[in-house]
Amino acid sequence: MRILKEDFLIRSGEFAELKEFSDIINEIQNAIKTVTWNSPDKFVINPKRKGNGVVPIKNNFIEDLKRYNWQGEVRMTLAKGMNPGPIDVIKDTSYGRFAVEWETGNISSSHRAMNKIAVGIIQKQIIGGILILPVKSFAKYLTDRIGNYEEFAPYFCMYEKLQIAEGVIGIIGIEHDKEDENVPLIKKGKDGNAKK
Amino acid sequence: MRILKEDFLIRSGEFAELKEFSDIINEIQNAIKTVTWNSPDKFVINPKRKGNGVVPIKNNFIEDLKRYNWQGEVRMTLAKGMNPGPIDVIKDTSYGRFAVEWETGNISSSHRAMNKIAVGIIQKQIIGGILILPVKSFAKYLTDRIGNYEEFAPYFCMYEKLQIAEGVIGIIGIEHDKEDENVPLIKKGKDGNAKK
Repeated sequence: MRILKEDFLIRSGEFAELKEFSDIINEIQNAIKTVTWNSPDKFVINPKRKGNGVVPIKNNFIEDLKRYNWQGEVRMTLAKGMNPGPIDVIKDTSYGRFAVEWETGNISSSHRAMNKIAVGIIQKQIIGGILILPVKSFAKYLTDRIGNYEEFAPYFCMYEKLQIAEGVIGIIGIEHDKEDENVPLIKKGKDGNAKK
Repeated sequence: MRILKEDFLIRSGEFAELKEFSDIINEIQNAIKTVTWNSPDKFVINPKRKGNGVVPIKNNFIEDLKRYNWQGEVRMTLAKGMNPGPIDVIKDTSYGRFAVEWETGNISSSHRAMNKIAVGIIQKQIIGGILILPVKSFAKYLTDRIGNYEEFAPYFCMYEKLQIAEGVIGIIGIEHDKEDENVPLIKKGKDGNAKK
């Protein structure tokens, strides 16, 4: 899988200067790159519009990060008054926990996920967090209504206006490596979109 | 209808000191109070769990505000790169437009609505905005999955951390006046929740 976009909306304080932080970013980048589909070393997608599920992709990413001592599906409270909820993957650092969320829902759920990361940093429950979501050219082959990087980009300026002295908020836009109409579709179901 | 909660997460700059601003708040408060159901002067709800729709309530509120020269369902762009979308009600002031959104979707959509207000202020497309949503004790009688004030409250601290020199971000939590099992349910449909 390829990283097409990478933005740090907040990168403040001591932690962001440490090797520990750049190691974390490297681990996330490597784990994304090693997510494959229908190929030993590439992510090859069947380019059917809205044809592919997203949860299996996320699961592969989490498995990859576990090799670097990340923990998957940890339940934690990111703010006072908030019920504990699952974070996709976290890693403990000397400055606190670092969280990664892999978007599988619609664009509104990306807003909530990113707000949760911001509140977690403000309330010192985490030292940083990154949201991973597909770019538009990838999203069009995935589950209907999944949020994409371009759709969220107009909101980056809000997070950049947050007064945060210590912490990291990042966003990564991902894409498939290759298209091939002959490979199987990725299974749908439990996609994280609101079901009625 | 009753106002149970009212919070200003941002209230900065000259506009927030003007009579024009306090007039706007009064108009919103009055329009909420004059939203009635099954009674000439009260909002009487059938206390059936998840039994009532929300769109007709919002429409009544918008009609009430129109008496004070507000415009309903105006399409506008709140940020560069964002497609124009409908705002529930707006009013033009000497400092720019003021927006009000009445939540009819799930909690994620409240996050997006509030982020949109914040971005609109940062990019100087609006001077302020208010999000109206039900408190928990009212939401339980409405459409399944509708967001409520208490669920959103843990995120207020994020908006309070925004560096905004001029503008207003507010949130209002509303409730029915009275319960009565004998009154008709409010019709559902077009509720703004994500449908699959």
